[in-house]
Amino acid sequence: MKTYLECIPCFFKQALEAAKLAGADEKMQKKILNDLARALPKFPLSSSPPEMGRTIYGLVKKITKKEDPYLKIKRKSNTLSMNIYPRLKNKISCSGDRLLRALELAIAGNIIDYGVKNSLNVDGELKRILDEEERTIKKEDKKNFNYHGFKESLKDAKSILYLADNAGEVAFDRVLIEEIKRLDMNKEIIYAVKEKPIINDALTADAVRCGINKVAKIVSSGLDAPGTVLRFCSKKFLKIYKDVDMVISKGQGNFEALSMPGRPVFFLFMAKCPVVAKSVKCNVGDIILLYRKR
Amino acid sequence: MKTYLECIPCFFKQALEAAKLAGADEKMQKKILNDLARALPKFPLSSSPPEMGRTIYGLVKKITKKEDPYLKIKRKSNTLSMNIYPRLKNKISCSGDRLLRALELAIAGNIIDYGVKNSLNVDGELKRILDEEERTIKKEDKKNFNYHGFKESLKDAKSILYLADNAGEVAFDRVLIEEIKRLDMNKEIIYAVKEKPIINDALTADAVRCGINKVAKIVSSGLDAPGTVLRFCSKKFLKIYKDVDMVISKGQGNFEALSMPGRPVFFLFMAKCPVVAKSVKCNVGDIILLYRKR
Repeated sequence: MKTYLECIPCFFKQALEAAKLAGADEKMQKKILNDLARALPKFPLSSSPPEMGRTIYGLVKKITKKEDPYLKIKRKSNTLSMNIYPRLKNKISCSGDRLLRALELAIAGNIIDYGVKNSLNVDGELKRILDEEERTIKKEDKKNFNYHGFKESLKDAKSILYLADNAGEVAFDRVLIEEIKRLDMNKEIIYAVKEKPIINDALTADAVRCGINKVAKIVSSGLDAPGTVLRFCSKKFLKIYKDVDMVISKGQGNFEALSMPGRPVFFLFMAKCPVVAKSVKCNVGDIILLYRKR
Repeated sequence: MKTYLECIPCFFKQALEAAKLAGADEKMQKKILNDLARALPKFPLSSSPPEMGRTIYGLVKKITKKEDPYLKIKRKSNTLSMNIYPRLKNKISCSGDRLLRALELAIAGNIIDYGVKNSLNVDGELKRILDEEERTIKKEDKKNFNYHGFKESLKDAKSILYLADNAGEVAFDRVLIEEIKRLDMNKEIIYAVKEKPIINDALTADAVRCGINKVAKIVSSGLDAPGTVLRFCSKKFLKIYKDVDMVISKGQGNFEALSMPGRPVFFLFMAKCPVVAKSVKCNVGDIILLYRKR
């Protein structure tokens, strides 16, 4: 997805919130906003928002000298999510269509995102997810919730690359991966996390904390951007990305970064901002399962 | 009021909305945001938001070559407000405390503001105001609604300077001015408008359109900023500002610009953004009658 002009005020908002969270004083906060302002005229709208996100959070890191300002938040999200993991499993056991339920829950878990909302009440959001009734996917939703296509692709896929999004959310990804494995134990699943801290995006430690290592192989994308910007990925990752039978991309950041994925990709995310919602033609808050051929 | 860091994302939002309203294409819109970004590092937080507002709308004017992008909107607001003027008068006639009611309505009219919200439904807002019941000012509201102080000052004031805010809103100001005149026909009332187009702020033409010339003397402040930034006002205006017995300042922009007014001022406005609400210690949407000694 290209950057829309409406994203620009939001870049400044994100920079300010990240600066505060990293403990910057007012002077430092202003310096971060000033440096972002200086970078803006050089930033082409043809780049995706996560590319600017990389600049923003890079500035916050550089100026505050905090390597991983979201570390505590990520740890807390992992713990809270793993606490409800047994209940997620139970919800799936009681469901009429286990795979569909796991997909819905995996997307619902995408709410644990500090890029959009800084003062997130993870505990409250998790409770809300657990309280939600199983929904029926309506016919008219098909365009933005391509469950049929997903199932068909899954049937034939021997190798699957799963692009992670946020810490905590990983527990929800695990539930989905376990359902996929339940259908076919022999599927090879590779779970890609970020290389360096960026917002609350999942790193290897978060994946391990949520037990992904028990169900998939964890790899790093080589990235320090809040979305899979292919030109910043490692060669090793790009080979996997090209070679696997199926790619499942989690979260809005990965969707924004991979609008021209170069290969078929299934995007699972919650539409969290009006710009993305407009581009997908959905409402903010909708859960999306989108298929892009290339 | 100083500029808070939270105002910065909002500056970009306002610039983008004003650029769109002025008919700028995407390239022009980006140029406006780029130029604003270049101006930002030089802008000290000690300046008030309307000073940056002056820069923003100046950029929009310069780049789009539209001298008065809000002209149509202002004319429509004047017409709609003057259409309901008889009903405003009627509301006051039916009221137990005419002056209080006129004050409330004058502040309610402050909703006609395109600086905060661009897609304002003026017609709907006016209907809402007309439907609103008379409210009782509670004891606990006294701090932010100093009606007693206002009445006391009014009693002794022979000359009053009334700082206008937006077009359309002028009809509401007229109703208040008429009530003040009703108490004492001999009070001299001077109604100050902006010199040059800035957002939908009232100019002389708007004041005349709403019949202010029948109840007050109209003067220009010499300004092209969305708030009375004293250092940009004309000498003639500053003399009036200094010499009058009482100053009534309308709108959030004038409040932001005159936080150190240098003389006693009554501020009448609706708190429209979280930053101002926080600074006044009220909720967004509250109607405020604040007295500042100097």
